[in-house]
Amino acid sequence: MRRRDFLSHSAALAALPLAGAPAFAGWFPGAGTHRADAVRVNGARLNGWLTAFDRIGRTPGGINRVAYSAADLEGRAFTLGLFRESGFSPRLDAAGNIFARVEGTDPSLKPILIGSHVDSVTDGGNFDGPLGSFAAIEVARTLRERGVRLRHPLDVVVWQNEEGGTIGSKIFIGAMTDADWDKVARSGKTVREGVGIVGGNFAEIASAVRRKGDIACYLELHIEQGGLLEKAGRQIGIVQGIVGLRWLEVTITGFANHAGATPMDQRQDAMLAAAKFTVAVNDAVRGEPGRQVATVGRLTVTPNTTNVIPAQVVLTVDLRDLEHATIDRFTGAFERLAREIGAATRTSFQFKRLVESEPALAHPALMDAIQSSADALGLSHQRMPSGAGHDAQEVARIAPMGMIFVPSVGGISHSPKEFTRAEDVAHGADVLLNAVIAVDRA
Amino acid sequence: MRRRDFLSHSAALAALPLAGAPAFAGWFPGAGTHRADAVRVNGARLNGWLTAFDRIGRTPGGINRVAYSAADLEGRAFTLGLFRESGFSPRLDAAGNIFARVEGTDPSLKPILIGSHVDSVTDGGNFDGPLGSFAAIEVARTLRERGVRLRHPLDVVVWQNEEGGTIGSKIFIGAMTDADWDKVARSGKTVREGVGIVGGNFAEIASAVRRKGDIACYLELHIEQGGLLEKAGRQIGIVQGIVGLRWLEVTITGFANHAGATPMDQRQDAMLAAAKFTVAVNDAVRGEPGRQVATVGRLTVTPNTTNVIPAQVVLTVDLRDLEHATIDRFTGAFERLAREIGAATRTSFQFKRLVESEPALAHPALMDAIQSSADALGLSHQRMPSGAGHDAQEVARIAPMGMIFVPSVGGISHSPKEFTRAEDVAHGADVLLNAVIAVDRA
Repeated sequence: MRRRDFLSHSAALAALPLAGAPAFAGWFPGAGTHRADAVRVNGARLNGWLTAFDRIGRTPGGINRVAYSAADLEGRAFTLGLFRESGFSPRLDAAGNIFARVEGTDPSLKPILIGSHVDSVTDGGNFDGPLGSFAAIEVARTLRERGVRLRHPLDVVVWQNEEGGTIGSKIFIGAMTDADWDKVARSGKTVREGVGIVGGNFAEIASAVRRKGDIACYLELHIEQGGLLEKAGRQIGIVQGIVGLRWLEVTITGFANHAGATPMDQRQDAMLAAAKFTVAVNDAVRGEPGRQVATVGRLTVTPNTTNVIPAQVVLTVDLRDLEHATIDRFTGAFERLAREIGAATRTSFQFKRLVESEPALAHPALMDAIQSSADALGLSHQRMPSGAGHDAQEVARIAPMGMIFVPSVGGISHSPKEFTRAEDVAHGADVLLNAVIAVDRA
Repeated sequence: MRRRDFLSHSAALAALPLAGAPAFAGWFPGAGTHRADAVRVNGARLNGWLTAFDRIGRTPGGINRVAYSAADLEGRAFTLGLFRESGFSPRLDAAGNIFARVEGTDPSLKPILIGSHVDSVTDGGNFDGPLGSFAAIEVARTLRERGVRLRHPLDVVVWQNEEGGTIGSKIFIGAMTDADWDKVARSGKTVREGVGIVGGNFAEIASAVRRKGDIACYLELHIEQGGLLEKAGRQIGIVQGIVGLRWLEVTITGFANHAGATPMDQRQDAMLAAAKFTVAVNDAVRGEPGRQVATVGRLTVTPNTTNVIPAQVVLTVDLRDLEHATIDRFTGAFERLAREIGAATRTSFQFKRLVESEPALAHPALMDAIQSSADALGLSHQRMPSGAGHDAQEVARIAPMGMIFVPSVGGISHSPKEFTRAEDVAHGADVLLNAVIAVDRA
């Protein structure tokens, strides 16, 4: 297939395996882009937007713009304002995702899609999501201010409810299940209710769905949320793929009894069993080489009283790896460990799968475009997996996907201390801008 | 000191160490009580009261008559009704403890005090407290019905808020601290507020306090709340003492970070540290012979989100033993373990002592009186420590104390499955009745 045909034939391309398809390996060699060609966004303006956004949902515990909360709505209103002040007319699709289009010169081409999200986790930070969303607006604005007309339409998107399970992008690719619709966000609202809350229209939800071939490609800028770039002293991360994820909910049932009157050898202590399991999960995951991670992040005890031996503990395990087989293998290992610990502590373990997402690989041609853009801007870079989930993993199922990472100070994210330096914010947006131009011209 | 002087000189006695004072070892030899002398309560009536009481505060999770809640007030109203239908005139002291007096024949003698409590833990059972309270009313009623006049006044007491830290009896002995008054019961009310809620009078609280010498002795019937009697096939437990207790609140501080993007070796996971500590506490306590117990019963995680590495865990350790020195030794061991685990997981541990109670030993003469009564009734028995705390441990600081245990089926307590068989309920009340008579005559 010819190089220049790649984007204008994206319908055919999207139907192909996205990862490492040899036909596209030489699509964007990068050699054609030189330092002299590089353009830059208005970094000060972009950083100013992020600073202004920091007050929304700010609490003593951190940023709380949990999906469908009042702070989320305030954050979305702020974002709609940025579109408008930048000269764009944002619209909401039926899912409540925010879109704005810049028309291209060739009506036969499918749109290039760029963006991210603005909702946050509980007690999170100000960069996870807003960086990529605002940078996408800034890229579109810079193109207009410089009089650069793309051949492709450029769609800027701000997905709704990323942190609750990449919901907005999942609706967009038509992958929602009944369980997804019934999922309760940390604001207490279900996704079904949330669609209406953010201004979508549940009755028309089918109109929000896009299929393979509808999108030329998707590019997302995001903070790394880990310490790899900082440790390596690199400015740009070229994401190779997003790890697959499985959320297990583990219910451990023991027997409530008096904490003083029950001898140690007569107990069925659900908390002790949960503690042994948490340690065992950690040991198992660290006991093998590889990038797999597992986290016990949520844990609730019943009755949760100082002088009562716990009857029940419900905890979650968040398990991730780039290989689906590794996720399956560790799930099996956790279940075996649970059986052993259950037998030793006279408790029972039950497993339930809450969330599941497949690994999603970036398109090699888009990785090349990002790399060439970084080179043209004189920025150091390295390829790396994304340990965090992103809307990009959903969109990857219907279109070629690429992601750009910039360093998180101290590797910190999902925390009030989440921070990315102003120069890195600007570098990331610059790479996104040049990658969009390169992809459009390819 | 002469045998018959014991109770009439209780002021002097109470000033002496209560445990194993050789002068009283032979006070109540028991040989004088024979099977023919034994009297019995109306067991069917007592069991009927307990059955009727079972509906108050009953929820799907168990009995919830948490101090100062609506169900607690309903339970107290029911109890006041039992006093009245039994022919007694209950009164509330300034603490809100319920008292009823049966006058004795010798006005120079101090009262014999019997009773327990009717409040419950969260999701508890129907026997922990109500058994001893209702049995005390039944004992007083049986004495009256049989025309038995005691020499001593007999005071029946139902203490307020036992489960929140033996509050009613602690007020009674004048041992409340500011921290005790500010303690928040599981109903959300402070003890200070609770006094008014249960009908006491905080302004007059000093009038509720009794001193050494004011009480001849205190006897309490209670369910065992452990499985020792059932396992040994014994009908009556003669309590040797109540273990001392220390409640530690441990705050473990790590660092919130992204569960997917943070490599396992770059984490400061407060949950992992809490799990290692919980396992270590259990191993330490089980690693030595002895009856010491330690329980992690309450644990809360921040932010408690599936995809965030926990920043903080607050947990409690409930540590008990008959020896104060053992409690101190294990506290030190836990602190050492915490330092090691903190260093290994890059987290920090802070310890705070929430509650502290000294071991309280039963008076040998009262143990003998209980044993002789059980013998006279033809009931099997054994001496044993109480692993649970009781109001008796407070009263022991101003008067000789004795406690009677009856078996808990399956050793289960502080649970909706808490149960004591009707015949054991009656046996316990019978032993209390005969012990009161024996003590009065001694």
